[in-house]
Amino acid sequence: MQPSMAPRTESVRSKRGSIVDAAIDRFGSDGYEHTKWSTIADDVGLGQTALYHYFESKAHCLLTIMRIELTQSLERFRRVTRVADPVEALRLAVHSAYEGTPRDALQRRILQNHVDLLSTPRPWEKEEQERQRSRALVREIEEAWTDLIARGVRSGEFTQRDPLMSARMVLALVVGVWRWYRPGGPHTLDQIGALNADAALRILE
Amino acid sequence: MQPSMAPRTESVRSKRGSIVDAAIDRFGSDGYEHTKWSTIADDVGLGQTALYHYFESKAHCLLTIMRIELTQSLERFRRVTRVADPVEALRLAVHSAYEGTPRDALQRRILQNHVDLLSTPRPWEKEEQERQRSRALVREIEEAWTDLIARGVRSGEFTQRDPLMSARMVLALVVGVWRWYRPGGPHTLDQIGALNADAALRILE
Repeated sequence: MQPSMAPRTESVRSKRGSIVDAAIDRFGSDGYEHTKWSTIADDVGLGQTALYHYFESKAHCLLTIMRIELTQSLERFRRVTRVADPVEALRLAVHSAYEGTPRDALQRRILQNHVDLLSTPRPWEKEEQERQRSRALVREIEEAWTDLIARGVRSGEFTQRDPLMSARMVLALVVGVWRWYRPGGPHTLDQIGALNADAALRILE
Repeated sequence: MQPSMAPRTESVRSKRGSIVDAAIDRFGSDGYEHTKWSTIADDVGLGQTALYHYFESKAHCLLTIMRIELTQSLERFRRVTRVADPVEALRLAVHSAYEGTPRDALQRRILQNHVDLLSTPRPWEKEEQERQRSRALVREIEEAWTDLIARGVRSGEFTQRDPLMSARMVLALVVGVWRWYRPGGPHTLDQIGALNADAALRILE
């Protein structure tokens, strides 16, 4: 293995990925406030100065993690809701929100714990860019769920109600899990996904 | 008006109340991170040193606001759920979560935006005391909703399901509103309360 032989872009990208992974593990287990930026530098074997080459601040890294999760969440939703039946699409959409690795679960908890960061402007340019992208993604996600519910209302599978309010209710149900879920509890994420998909359909039907 | 004539305890208490009110307004509108402790000192006409007589830190003040909201939330729940019918009690419990003044709404948003603070120990004694009290209240609130749902399951009004999971779903629905609600939107809090009470009953029935 000769890392210095690898194309530079590839190497920068994978180092950035390693920093994001280390930050998810630290923010997820120790909490964002309690994590020192220097600890993440140590975790990935970089000096703090080198770390600033990738992220302009700890908040920039946090906002990047949030934007990544929002991007993946929208992609997941679009991938699983291609099926024609709105009931099946809704069930798959709710269920897919709990699929993935333990690190994916941490990433979703980190997003939910810091959503309020998105409501006020950031002092630095790259932080603010990630905040703006995240805000746009939050709106796109809300619209995607609203459209699916409206489709189910039109086809008569869901009861006629304000689809945006219904989407917000279902989303509250979906993300509320990250408040209390910890690995090793009495329910697996797969079971929680199935229970929440049933509950979401009861809200809509 | 001669403030110096008032009994000392009374005066301390009301000053503490003014600080809490000012902090709710600032944290709620500008965000906790963006609020300087010295701004709150200015708002209530105190020097920063005098402010530390009441709260040992900005975080101590935030945790106090969270503990106050949790206390009031449990009191509200107990007051409105004294009725015998579990369906009516559940409806009143959900609805009561949206009653109150605009400042009450801000207080609830502040609680929801910082719940993750409760998961890691605080460095200072009074912060840690408020954190511990808040954690105990979160458990009591979850238990109170679980007991009400279990009562409805026993009486046959709600379908037989894990009542703790059901309570968490209903609570996610109830508090999820504070993520997106802003005054002046198309729905009043009273309307949102009615819609969410109906949705909660559909989850349970």
